[in-house]
Amino acid sequence: MHVYRYEENPLITPEDVPPYHEGFEVIGTFNAGVTKFRDEIILLLRVAERPVSHDENIVQAPVFNPDTGLVEIYEFRKDDPRYDFSDPRVIQNASTGQFAYLTSLSYLRIARSKDGRHFTVEDKPFVYPSNKLEVFGIEDPRITLIDDTYYIYFSAVSPNGVGEAMVSTKDFQQVTHHGMIFAPENKDVLIFPEKINGKYYALHRPVPKSNGAPEIWIAESDNLLYWGNHQFLLGLREDKWDSGRIGGGAVPIKTDRGWLELYHGASKDNRYCMGAVLLDLHDPTKVIARSEQPILEPEADYETNGFFGNVVFSCGAIVEGDMVKMYYGVADTSMACAELRLSEILNSLTYY
Amino acid sequence: MHVYRYEENPLITPEDVPPYHEGFEVIGTFNAGVTKFRDEIILLLRVAERPVSHDENIVQAPVFNPDTGLVEIYEFRKDDPRYDFSDPRVIQNASTGQFAYLTSLSYLRIARSKDGRHFTVEDKPFVYPSNKLEVFGIEDPRITLIDDTYYIYFSAVSPNGVGEAMVSTKDFQQVTHHGMIFAPENKDVLIFPEKINGKYYALHRPVPKSNGAPEIWIAESDNLLYWGNHQFLLGLREDKWDSGRIGGGAVPIKTDRGWLELYHGASKDNRYCMGAVLLDLHDPTKVIARSEQPILEPEADYETNGFFGNVVFSCGAIVEGDMVKMYYGVADTSMACAELRLSEILNSLTYY
Repeated sequence: MHVYRYEENPLITPEDVPPYHEGFEVIGTFNAGVTKFRDEIILLLRVAERPVSHDENIVQAPVFNPDTGLVEIYEFRKDDPRYDFSDPRVIQNASTGQFAYLTSLSYLRIARSKDGRHFTVEDKPFVYPSNKLEVFGIEDPRITLIDDTYYIYFSAVSPNGVGEAMVSTKDFQQVTHHGMIFAPENKDVLIFPEKINGKYYALHRPVPKSNGAPEIWIAESDNLLYWGNHQFLLGLREDKWDSGRIGGGAVPIKTDRGWLELYHGASKDNRYCMGAVLLDLHDPTKVIARSEQPILEPEADYETNGFFGNVVFSCGAIVEGDMVKMYYGVADTSMACAELRLSEILNSLTYY
Repeated sequence: MHVYRYEENPLITPEDVPPYHEGFEVIGTFNAGVTKFRDEIILLLRVAERPVSHDENIVQAPVFNPDTGLVEIYEFRKDDPRYDFSDPRVIQNASTGQFAYLTSLSYLRIARSKDGRHFTVEDKPFVYPSNKLEVFGIEDPRITLIDDTYYIYFSAVSPNGVGEAMVSTKDFQQVTHHGMIFAPENKDVLIFPEKINGKYYALHRPVPKSNGAPEIWIAESDNLLYWGNHQFLLGLREDKWDSGRIGGGAVPIKTDRGWLELYHGASKDNRYCMGAVLLDLHDPTKVIARSEQPILEPEADYETNGFFGNVVFSCGAIVEGDMVKMYYGVADTSMACAELRLSEILNSLTYY
């Protein structure tokens, strides 16, 4: 696989983006949704901010208060035996293994570019937590353009779990909220850009507790707001790069040979790669072909090192002819882009 | 609370029902969906069958094969360290704590009665596992009558998780399948019997893994098949009878004071009781009132002892004037019924 990483990588880093919250620092500008709007490429960045540390023995958790619209900061001593602080992203409940708080608050911010390499980041959030299902933040947006409307959907995180919420816009200025479209635990939703046999389809990634694994499902809808006929689509593979967890990545790409989904897979030790799966053009519940090897793995320094290293994680790509410009978050820290050939990806798959 | 348990309780026991599978025994006839059809009360029983044991050192797991339509039996030695056999209902993966197999296979069978106390159980299954999302069985049905159609929905259990599937019937003979309406992990769905402000509503009970608890959510729909606008509705209460897990029970009952939901709550040590919550008549996402104490707790011998004791678990009730005939599964074994006064339940609630 020929992968051309931009010389400008990483394209956007936390240092490029001033914090929105006073007394906070930006620790991540990553996992951006991607689309074209007028003559620009838009990256809808996930911006993660955390309170600046004032005591190394204290871990702080920012929490949005939907009644006041303000962010409150909870503090935890690192020697508090009720919690486990070993994962820098979360404060875990030591007895249940579930997370109790996040160490940063994420929201969505627009970056614009004419050449796809140099971006200008807007000063203010474009989508910000707005209700009690988003008090721990909103994360990992994807953007599907249908007719003249951009549907933007993202993980909504709260003490009640992680689900997927949706908003829409026509102009990247006015936003309409549509509530939570997939209940917890679910993320990595990807809405197909057109109806197939009269129905909308979406990939989604539930994380069940009692049994089952973080794997990819598909659902259908007639209005993009209400979803049903859930079917299991794609599972983990033991002893492969995608043995730990998988989830959809970029918005499905329509090709002659089927719907191409660029998805992420992580090994059991949390190394995140990108791979591809091909779904039937007329029935996307059917898997036609799949990557044996990743199409992109964390190799560059900015991919292996960062807040949470060894992660490449795409939430969207721009396709121009045979060229796939895959934008992707690196190390839960920054944004990068790599170009791949669509034909080469399709030819690399193992067909069933 | 005045609770009148029928003298005939338990109304239906495993001894009353011959097994459908050769070489199997019926171990549960419980958690039945309830409705009136013509001049009869119908209990749609969850019937649990397991292979008759031939070796006390072996635990058997029945699994439906959707390709052959037959049930296959997997065998596990009780000294296999990869598994934990301490819960009689499941074979747990010792390392993950998730279940790997169930020890019985459940399906749905009709019982009919003219007086609500004496039931005749049909010879054959009415709804039986039919696809790969149901290979471990189907469980805990509820029935909502809307216009002339009975919507029957139930837990569908497979290695991919536990979700909620739906079928419908007009005559309790012909069945139409509608697929999975809530993706894993979810169960205890309750569809309201009429539209409210132009939308259908359903309670559901996701079980998220990374954070959150088994609590009650509400969703809306315009066609009963596709669901969205998920909202968190009702949570656990520390140090109360419903501190461990809660889920909807009977189909919501329309009253002058609001929608009355009879729900189950379990303590952290798995004692299952029934309580009640009242939702706004015109906006069921609003909680008006809730039981401080259970309206029914496991006290009778048939409720405290059985395959999984200390469980009362209702999936439906018949309301006649001020009388609530609450049918309920007992000890994951049999069916029982108790009569309560609707007015007394409503007056017992704590209003917010």
